This record gives sequence, C-alpha cells and structure tokens, in this order.
Amino acid sequence: MIGIFDSGIGGLTVVKKIFEYMGKYQILYFGDTARTPYGGRGEATIKKYALEDVEFLIKNGAKIIVVACNTASAVALRELKEKITLPIFNVVEPAVNAAIKISRGRIGVIGTRATVESKIYEKLINPPKFFREKLRRVKVFSQAAPLLVPLVEEDWLKKPETRRIVKKYLVPLRANQIDTLILACTHYPFLRKIIQAKIGRWVKIIDPAEEVVKEIKNFLEKNPEIEKELARGSSHQFFVSDLTPKFQELAGKWLDRKIKLNEVEI
Amino acid sequence: MIGIFDSGIGGLTVVKKIFEYMGKYQILYFGDTARTPYGGRGEATIKKYALEDVEFLIKNGAKIIVVACNTASAVALRELKEKITLPIFNVVEPAVNAAIKISRGRIGVIGTRATVESKIYEKLINPPKFFREKLRRVKVFSQAAPLLVPLVEEDWLKKPETRRIVKKYLVPLRANQIDTLILACTHYPFLRKIIQAKIGRWVKIIDPAEEVVKEIKNFLEKNPEIEKELARGSSHQFFVSDLTPKFQELAGKWLDRKIKLNEVEI
Repeated sequence: MIGIFDSGIGGLTVVKKIFEYMGKYQILYFGDTARTPYGGRGEATIKKYALEDVEFLIKNGAKIIVVACNTASAVALRELKEKITLPIFNVVEPAVNAAIKISRGRIGVIGTRATVESKIYEKLINPPKFFREKLRRVKVFSQAAPLLVPLVEEDWLKKPETRRIVKKYLVPLRANQIDTLILACTHYPFLRKIIQAKIGRWVKIIDPAEEVVKEIKNFLEKNPEIEKELARGSSHQFFVSDLTPKFQELAGKWLDRKIKLNEVEI
Repeated sequence: MIGIFDSGIGGLTVVKKIFEYMGKYQILYFGDTARTPYGGRGEATIKKYALEDVEFLIKNGAKIIVVACNTASAVALRELKEKITLPIFNVVEPAVNAAIKISRGRIGVIGTRATVESKIYEKLINPPKFFREKLRRVKVFSQAAPLLVPLVEEDWLKKPETRRIVKKYLVPLRANQIDTLILACTHYPFLRKIIQAKIGRWVKIIDPAEEVVKEIKNFLEKNPEIEKELARGSSHQFFVSDLTPKFQELAGKWLDRKIKLNEVEI
C-alpha cells in the first residue's frame, strides 16, 4: 500500500492527486487529528509525532511512505530519511525542484510558522556548499501564514475576511516581486484563486501535492520491483487519531468522494 | 500547591487572577501545548487528555486542582469529578452561577466548538429535573467562535479583520437580544473591549477566570484544613508539553511578568 500521513486531514489533498494521477493503487492514510495542527509546535515535538505517524503506516502494511504534511516534511526531513528504510517522499523537495525550474530568480514561500522557521526552502534552494558553483543565486522570501489553516478548516473560503487576511500575508512577498510562489501547506491550495488574485496573475503558483505525486509516479516507473509490491484496488483505508463530525464532513468534501474515517489510537 | 492546567497557555489568565486575588499561594501550572488546542477535538480525546493533565499535577504535588480550560471543563466535568478525590474547580460552573445571578433571562455563550456542542451551559442553567420547579426558564444562546483562538494567539488583538470576525460571530447573539454574555474560552477576554462594543454596551460580560478564582477563595475560607495544606511563596512552577519561543513570549505578556516555562513530556 501507499502509506500517507499528515498532521490532520489536509493530506487528503495529496490522496486526491494520487487518485487523479495513479488511481490504481491502494491507499493507507493516517491523519493525526488528535494532535493537529503541527505548524505551531516545536521541532522536537514535530519530529516525535512524525516518526510515530510513519511507524503506524509501516505497521499497517505501507510499502512506500508519503509525508503529505509540509510542516513534518520541512522539520523532520532528515530524521525520517535516516530512520526509515522504505522509500519515503515529502512535499518539500519536489516543490523546490519545480520552483527552481520555472522561477526567474525570486521564489516566495508561504507556510506554517514551523515550516518557515525551519528555513528548509532557503537551504534546499541555495545549498551552502554549492554557493560558489552556482551561476546565479535564487532569492527566497518566506512568510508564515498561520491563520489560513483555521480559516480553511472553518470553510471560510470565500469570506471577505479571508480575502483581507490573505492579502495582508502576501503584501511583503508582493513587495519583493516574487515570480513564483510555493503553497507550502496542504490547506493553502483551497485558497489558490484568492492567492493568485492577491499576489498577481503573473506569479506562478506551485502546489506541492501535485509535484510530489508526479515524483512518486516517476519513481515507480523507474523501480518496477517496488511498484509490483504495491497493492492494487479501491479498498482504501483512512485512519485518524481523533474523529469528529467536522473532520468526517471536511474529508468527504476535500476528497470529493464519500469515505469513512476510522478512529485509531497511536 | 494550587495545580492549574489548560490545553495551552490560555490558562495563565486564571493564574493572573489568582495572583491578583490570592497571591500568597504557590502555583503549579501545566499547559498541554504539544496537543493544544482542545476546542475542536472529540469528547473521548478531550477527556483522556484532561485526565492525563490532572495526573501530572497530582504527581507533582497539587493539593487542589483548577481546570482553567473551558473546553476541558465543559466536556470532562463529570469524569474529572468522579475520578479525582482532591477538590477540583472548573471554569464553567462559577460562570453559570454568576450569569444566573445577574441575567434578566437571556444568556449568551461564546466558546470553542467542543464547548458549545457539549451543551453544558444549557444543562446547568436549565437542569431538566428541576424543569417544573423553576419559576422562569432562562434562555441560553450559544455560539462557537473558533477563529478567535488563533487570532488572539497571533496577537491580532486590534486588527480590523479581528473586529469584523468578532462582529460576525456575535450577530446571532445580538439578534437574540441576550443581556449577559459568558466568554467561555480563556482567550476571549483579550478581546473583551471589541466584544463589548459589538454585542452592545448594555450586555453584561462574564469572565470565567474571575468567577472561578472568587469561588476558590471562598472555598478556602470555608475549608481552613485544606487551606493550611497549600504551599505559600512565589516559587511558582510552569510546565508545558511543548516549548516554543512564541509560547514563551505570549506567556510573559499574558501574565504581565517574566516567567520561565519548562518543557516536560507527559
């Protein structure tokens, strides 16, 4: 199975892309809704939670792991790669690669506080050791946009307050004349239209969910022995650590199909 | 020691009131910042977390327990009272008593989703078994206002977006012509001025932090044998399950004095 985890149900946006691009594989999803959100927590806590989430997926039969959570990807990237022997994918690196490819030199990032403070985008886009070898340095401008998560979870997608808050967060990025913007949190693509309008229509927007799924597809084409191991079929399994009616409702809406969330203690 | 817990650092507002009204006692505080916020979680999860929080306080020498978190008070009230033999105080009942005393019959409540869905205010204000005995039924109008928590934690106390969102949440309560409003979440008193302006200056506002501290003071006066057991002095202890610079900063600000938060795993 393809094992996917997120701090909550935002990672279902990655599941949706998997259904779209490579729908034949069986999905095992875990959303840590009992401890969501991760975006404002400290490094050690995020690493601990991310490892526990992965362990749950492995124990339940995952053959490859997808870290759908930007915060966990950004903060726990190295630890997860060191400790997990299965192929593991994250939403940071594919987004960085896509951004470098299309940017003319000024990349903006919006994410949670923990994601922005990790400075992972700065490090990956301009790795220090290659400093002298690079022909040009790409500038990275990152901005924490923590209120967008609760606004999306409250389904305030079209409210004027949401538009105003999006605009407020984007002012510094706009002032820095970014040409590419990474939406570094699973929730932000729900606000893509407003974000595009406020940042300017000439700015290219990158949705990490889309990029990671392309990367997984690519990987599986090149590694048929792993691809063979993945279960096929539509009996997907969705687990959360805390089940509320709101999450059940949002899950169906975001995935655009009826699913049953199952509560499990981890 | 007086043991106080909250889902996060909002409970420091209760600590502040204790310093104000009965400053001689030593405080043991625990904020479950690694799993905050509780307000959107399911009942079973909130009960489990609340019990773990109380156990931490008891293990570390608390002689009385204060549940500073409205969500935990509302959802886990009965369980905590059943399982804890120490005197235990919560922020729901004292606020209800104060509201009944001053209301002319229409009480509004704003709180987290879990608090509002618990219907605890409705139950306590109009307990079913006394239905026939009551001379008048008091009407309760409750409204979940989940976005106010992140807005306060982002320190957006005076932003126009915050004012608009407060207004939006209060519209139905205003339409119902409430005369008394319970601020049933530790974070809301930070927005008291805006709330007062938007709900109307004739509406009496109840701050549960203030009411619970009055009740504790009262209780200790009537129970000198318990009062004697409480440690005196200013060597207060503040623990959190996840320590971030933001929490450390907000803690000092909200408590209006410098304190050191200590991280502890529970």
